Amino acid sequence: MAKLLLKNATVLLEDGSVKETNILIDNDTIESIGNIDENCQCDKIIDCTNKLAIPGFVNTHTHAAMTLLRSYADDMQLMDWLENKIWPVEAKMKSDDIYWGSMLAIAEMIKTGTTTFADMYSEMDRVGDAVAETGIRGVLSRGMIGIAPNGQQALQENIELYKNYHNAAEGRITVMFGPHAPYTCPPDFLRQVAGEAQKVGAEIHIHLSETIGEVENCMKQYNMSPIALMEETGIFDCGVLAAHSVHVSEKDIAIMKKHNVRVAHNPGSNMKLASGIAPVPAMLKAGICVGLGTDGTSSNNNLDMLEEVNLVTLLHKVNTLDPLVIPALTGVKMATEYGAKTVGLGNIVGKIAIGYKADITLLNMNHIQWCPKHDIVSLLAYSAKSSHVDTVLVNGKILLEHGRLTTIDEERVLYEASNRAMNLVK
Amino acid sequence: MAKLLLKNATVLLEDGSVKETNILIDNDTIESIGNIDENCQCDKIIDCTNKLAIPGFVNTHTHAAMTLLRSYADDMQLMDWLENKIWPVEAKMKSDDIYWGSMLAIAEMIKTGTTTFADMYSEMDRVGDAVAETGIRGVLSRGMIGIAPNGQQALQENIELYKNYHNAAEGRITVMFGPHAPYTCPPDFLRQVAGEAQKVGAEIHIHLSETIGEVENCMKQYNMSPIALMEETGIFDCGVLAAHSVHVSEKDIAIMKKHNVRVAHNPGSNMKLASGIAPVPAMLKAGICVGLGTDGTSSNNNLDMLEEVNLVTLLHKVNTLDPLVIPALTGVKMATEYGAKTVGLGNIVGKIAIGYKADITLLNMNHIQWCPKHDIVSLLAYSAKSSHVDTVLVNGKILLEHGRLTTIDEERVLYEASNRAMNLVK
Repeated sequence: MAKLLLKNATVLLEDGSVKETNILIDNDTIESIGNIDENCQCDKIIDCTNKLAIPGFVNTHTHAAMTLLRSYADDMQLMDWLENKIWPVEAKMKSDDIYWGSMLAIAEMIKTGTTTFADMYSEMDRVGDAVAETGIRGVLSRGMIGIAPNGQQALQENIELYKNYHNAAEGRITVMFGPHAPYTCPPDFLRQVAGEAQKVGAEIHIHLSETIGEVENCMKQYNMSPIALMEETGIFDCGVLAAHSVHVSEKDIAIMKKHNVRVAHNPGSNMKLASGIAPVPAMLKAGICVGLGTDGTSSNNNLDMLEEVNLVTLLHKVNTLDPLVIPALTGVKMATEYGAKTVGLGNIVGKIAIGYKADITLLNMNHIQWCPKHDIVSLLAYSAKSSHVDTVLVNGKILLEHGRLTTIDEERVLYEASNRAMNLVK
Repeated sequence: MAKLLLKNATVLLEDGSVKETNILIDNDTIESIGNIDENCQCDKIIDCTNKLAIPGFVNTHTHAAMTLLRSYADDMQLMDWLENKIWPVEAKMKSDDIYWGSMLAIAEMIKTGTTTFADMYSEMDRVGDAVAETGIRGVLSRGMIGIAPNGQQALQENIELYKNYHNAAEGRITVMFGPHAPYTCPPDFLRQVAGEAQKVGAEIHIHLSETIGEVENCMKQYNMSPIALMEETGIFDCGVLAAHSVHVSEKDIAIMKKHNVRVAHNPGSNMKLASGIAPVPAMLKAGICVGLGTDGTSSNNNLDMLEEVNLVTLLHKVNTLDPLVIPALTGVKMATEYGAKTVGLGNIVGKIAIGYKADITLLNMNHIQWCPKHDIVSLLAYSAKSSHVDTVLVNGKILLEHGRLTTIDEERVLYEASNRAMNLVK
């Protein structure tokens, strides 16, 4: 589609203001915002009356294929959950399971307004295929367990993934390297990963300081925190997307800031797994870029970024006993602008601004939760529901139109995912 | 309607199990659960294939009419918020504003699966009218500020409300006495309220120990906690619905247990206002009945009980660092069975069980968030959205049918509420 006009939209602009205006899209890019040139020849006009246009959500950390395990194992201790439930089933997963689990996740993400997701899993070429087919934007990394027998193979797969998928699908796919975590990847392995990543100029996606146990063990084993260890191994010499970072000290925060580490904060997952509460206000104050993520659905249990916006604003208020900490707009920015920076795409998405890619989510404000309209940003963060997402564009292409997926056969996805999930846990 | 059959429903039974079965409703009451008698003459049959039937949610604490102030004042300090924003606007509210604000709230509650709400506000006869008209169940109390010039008048209005509305509207309305809080109602006023309530056999709905400041001031002024003060004033000799109870000691919990005080826990509001985290696991362990509430929309900002279920399970896990505390089923029970007990209706609603009133919410499980179906209760608490609510019955009457309100003109409510809200803040 050459020219697409979003007419009479209520638009969340990059300065946080909200204005009724028009957005003109040329192919994949936002060409102009404002009055319509009457001679403008548009191929399609979408009437956006009473619809709120926001930058599409960026889910900075998830494991899409794990959606097959949604509701399979909840209310358990972490190691019991991993060892007796999650890992045995994951070991049985075939390439096609990964594909259909990812398709299920992508369908949910698009329907709830997410336009970019950062993923870490195995068989990532199949996730890449799912991203290519569906039109969503994906930042993919091959999860590597350095202590596992297939550690070296996984690294080779990540190198291959980078070669074959980085900047593929009209640039919608980017690839990072995915060493799982300091407690599953020894320092030598991390050094090797950092070296390979730097060879090709790739960034790193890694779980860091998620639980207090991880930090304590790291201190015991290496006499330094996971954050300090990452600096020592050279991981922080690559650009880094750090998932969780719940248990970080002031000193850790200073190290992270020094290396411009970006954080994927996952409030829902951290709460459900009882991991702890990340010092997000302190990180933001230190100038660290913090985006929001859902984590996988087995620890959430959905992929609803608007829910995470609500959680991040509420959780840190009560944790700091400060009702002004992380106000509505900051929560929304963490899910959009800051999220885009977190996953390395801050120059092309995360804002509705001229020259940015047209990754836009339109919410229908004809719902009770939007009445009355004293403050649109407050309504978005504190009252709106992801079910109000009406239309979603990625790269200027319509992936959801009035609630209907345009690139995904939802019924088939539900059928395949459901059957495969049930077979896996048999 | 004499006989209504919910056919092939997936039913959440009172023991927490989930079973595909049928529910036969005779007028306002659940007559049987199980196989259908082939000779059963039903006036209406609802096909509930792939629909989950749960007891309708009980919102144990709200201020419905305040929905006119949704998004009017957020991200503020409590006293700044009350003194400079909320109270000046409330002072301008007319009787009709209360009515339309309540209608807006009731519309949202029914659409999100709530069948009973406990309300505290002024002009409660208008709220009673809204409850009577719409078919929802309401537990109404006249909010009384003892230190205000109209304290005695408010008490008289609560007495009148009890006379005129208790057990009205086919028994859907019950009335409590609503002294606002210990910090707004001096001991003598509370003694008077307790006396008047006992004269007619009414219970009490009161805010108790919401903030640390309230507790500290009470200790300073009376040398006892708000909970101990309530025992001393005779308030606890009436049945009591205590809203919030965030800052309660072990000793307070023992006093509450002794008097069978029931607690309306409002996780969303407590988080948003940064009030603190109530010791809910300790209260439950002590045998105190704890239900869930949304509080008013100016501190939430919606009336979504399924969101509160999600919040209560997540918040206490992370607060206690125990992922097993408040599991999915407990969260759901707090929003249904325990909620019904909390508002004094435990013998008639809160369960899908024979002889109980047919207050039932049906959720459509044909949504991605319900796939795959490893565990229905987990899906309900951790993944489902209130937008999946399809059909709602109160007293056997259909108030929502496939997402459409049957007793409320939604468009008119949105129009009236919106206009009135904008006039109030002019």
